[in-house]
Amino acid sequence: MTGPPLRVALLGAGVVGSEVARLLVEQADDLRARVGAPLELVGVAVRRPDVDRRLPVAASLVCDDAVEMLERTQPDVVVEVMGGLEPARSLILKAFKLGAGVVTANKALLAEDGAALYEASARSGVDLYYEASVAGAIPLLRPLRESLVGDRVLRVMGIVNGTTNYVLTRMDEAGVSFDEALAEAKALGYAEADPSADVEGYDAAAKAAIIASLAFHSRVGLAEVHREGMAAVTSADVAAARDAGHVVKLLAIAERSHDGRGITVRVHPAMVPRTHPLAGVREAYNAVFVESEAAGQLMFYGRGAGGAPTASAVLGDIVAVARNRISGGHGPRESVYAQLPVLPVGESSTRYYIAIDVADKAGVLASVAETFATHEVSIETLRQDGHGDDASLRIVTHVAKESDLASTVSALRGLDVVRAVASVMRVVGE
Amino acid sequence: MTGPPLRVALLGAGVVGSEVARLLVEQADDLRARVGAPLELVGVAVRRPDVDRRLPVAASLVCDDAVEMLERTQPDVVVEVMGGLEPARSLILKAFKLGAGVVTANKALLAEDGAALYEASARSGVDLYYEASVAGAIPLLRPLRESLVGDRVLRVMGIVNGTTNYVLTRMDEAGVSFDEALAEAKALGYAEADPSADVEGYDAAAKAAIIASLAFHSRVGLAEVHREGMAAVTSADVAAARDAGHVVKLLAIAERSHDGRGITVRVHPAMVPRTHPLAGVREAYNAVFVESEAAGQLMFYGRGAGGAPTASAVLGDIVAVARNRISGGHGPRESVYAQLPVLPVGESSTRYYIAIDVADKAGVLASVAETFATHEVSIETLRQDGHGDDASLRIVTHVAKESDLASTVSALRGLDVVRAVASVMRVVGE
Repeated sequence: MTGPPLRVALLGAGVVGSEVARLLVEQADDLRARVGAPLELVGVAVRRPDVDRRLPVAASLVCDDAVEMLERTQPDVVVEVMGGLEPARSLILKAFKLGAGVVTANKALLAEDGAALYEASARSGVDLYYEASVAGAIPLLRPLRESLVGDRVLRVMGIVNGTTNYVLTRMDEAGVSFDEALAEAKALGYAEADPSADVEGYDAAAKAAIIASLAFHSRVGLAEVHREGMAAVTSADVAAARDAGHVVKLLAIAERSHDGRGITVRVHPAMVPRTHPLAGVREAYNAVFVESEAAGQLMFYGRGAGGAPTASAVLGDIVAVARNRISGGHGPRESVYAQLPVLPVGESSTRYYIAIDVADKAGVLASVAETFATHEVSIETLRQDGHGDDASLRIVTHVAKESDLASTVSALRGLDVVRAVASVMRVVGE
Repeated sequence: MTGPPLRVALLGAGVVGSEVARLLVEQADDLRARVGAPLELVGVAVRRPDVDRRLPVAASLVCDDAVEMLERTQPDVVVEVMGGLEPARSLILKAFKLGAGVVTANKALLAEDGAALYEASARSGVDLYYEASVAGAIPLLRPLRESLVGDRVLRVMGIVNGTTNYVLTRMDEAGVSFDEALAEAKALGYAEADPSADVEGYDAAAKAAIIASLAFHSRVGLAEVHREGMAAVTSADVAAARDAGHVVKLLAIAERSHDGRGITVRVHPAMVPRTHPLAGVREAYNAVFVESEAAGQLMFYGRGAGGAPTASAVLGDIVAVARNRISGGHGPRESVYAQLPVLPVGESSTRYYIAIDVADKAGVLASVAETFATHEVSIETLRQDGHGDDASLRIVTHVAKESDLASTVSALRGLDVVRAVASVMRVVGE
């Protein structure tokens, strides 16, 4: 029952690529049985072929001219794990032209240019799979675009960046500062030397764009994702969250607006109640929480990064593309029929935590409360601490519109009795 | 871009079936866009057509002769949500003969007779999908057989029965007795009038067989699943687990043996550390924890039962079968090439908790410790409580072979100083 070999070409042999090569070789027997044909690694293109990567393949397969390699080997499946926009984009388009299906882990490219890639794959009648681009090993995109395809997704909230989750976990559990936690993350290999893509939320924003596109059958580009990083999260915020039975997480959120007119897509830190399933996602783990009309609440949890976990997701996609080639079918095409517009973040609604440093004098509470009421933001709980120069208020609101909250904060800053609005953070997940 | 309608026939219109019908009608526009063709409900077969089910379909579509309906309507997709072995089995085989793909939620039938159904579907060249049969709305089977297909699964541990998880959660959190918790579960509709299929682990065992088959590419029948229900779990066990920072869960476990020779598949109560992701799965929620070689630890969480959640999974499968018919491909076939044998439960290894009522006299500890040592079971922690007639020992072992532990317990029972072995429970998840 075994057919002729399916030819696999690998673009990139870094942390992920070398694991993919290893698994293709070590698991060859299992993969042959599962696909119904052997998977043969026919070429590996890298920037510097002279570096010893201890790849389990003949040295003759490794080269630095990717275009030449693709033309020469005529692969069935091209695996792009080099990252970056170029030459990854051109090589994927080249693969489609050669009639090969493509598996990629390249979230930046997909968030930037997914539509053009999808169109090119459809024109060539070949597959484009990218499970590994979001949340590493966690099967998320396949469940979203296949398992939940008969349901109506209302909201997706994910911890999709392991670096920031590690930092926030340490700030919460060990009480260390942001800088200390980040230094630990670097020492453990969870954070890059330049951590800005993680800390400032760019990495999470690219994943949010991909998730939103799939969940809502609409095309969402990176530029449409509202992004706030976690650098502004202070130890005081984390401690305040802890006092209130919450934990601070950097979340990627994509949700349908209440009136169904559109969606909001955003990345920002938020307080999450300890009883919420996302609150227990610690250290460098990722998890994505999905709420849909019929299925209710779902969560997908696992390792979001690392060579082996990401390679597991890549291998699953390689098998899918290979099976499709054998059966003559193809995977799901881009589904953007709904064309829901991405609404400004001001249209989103959530609860808020606000810490205000105030003057300790009569009438403070009344002024503050009136300011909230004027802007139609309803207060759920209020706590007053300290006195004199240290007096402060901590307020949690009911669900309010982001634009109303912004007006409230702006007005609070103008009050005589308010020294400073020390912190504003969203509170999500009841 | 929209093709001719795909014809869907529904067998059964109970809690799940009526939700499926509702979603097919209410979401018709979305489904048409996602499938690329309208899904048309062409017939509903029920036992008693005279009962008013408030189905959103013309009364003329509802009938009680399923065979006649299938022959008359010539469906593309048959949805079997009637449950039970017969006539479900015959009707599914009939559907295959008519060239229809089948979506079923029938775990009992699959666990009993999955192999024959798979073979029949392959012979007819049509699809058999059954995501809803395990863990309701949680996308689990598709991730196992597609996303993780390039990886090597080591272990699957699931909370796959909501009734027993609700009961155990209440015993743990509210300190109520088994009987009280079960009465609550019945009042909330989580437990049947006759709860034995849940409490005695039959329901979980059927799911374990299906999970094990997919995870290990082997054929596992219901009869090969070692099954222990939760009726023997006492309030004292739950309290002891709590003292030790654990919680008792009824787990379905399928794991590869250490030497890779085979697998063990079993359902039993176990103590799980509070820090383990499964420990936080409360009330009627389900979750399945997967460990695989490359992906590492994954968890899938959500609602395991109920009309709407199960219907969500059924709809996802209907869309998959419909897309396959349009693209000319088909879904993954049964993969049993590995043919790993199911080993006797005595071959499995885990840690154990043992509570022993002992005589309060000199030399007790030495006799007990010697008994463990003789049978090659190593003690990790030991705690002695009370004195006189109330003296007891609570022991947690290192990882030990089940058969060695059984010999130990048997020998303990023969000791003069041992009044009773009050409790033996596995401890899983470090």
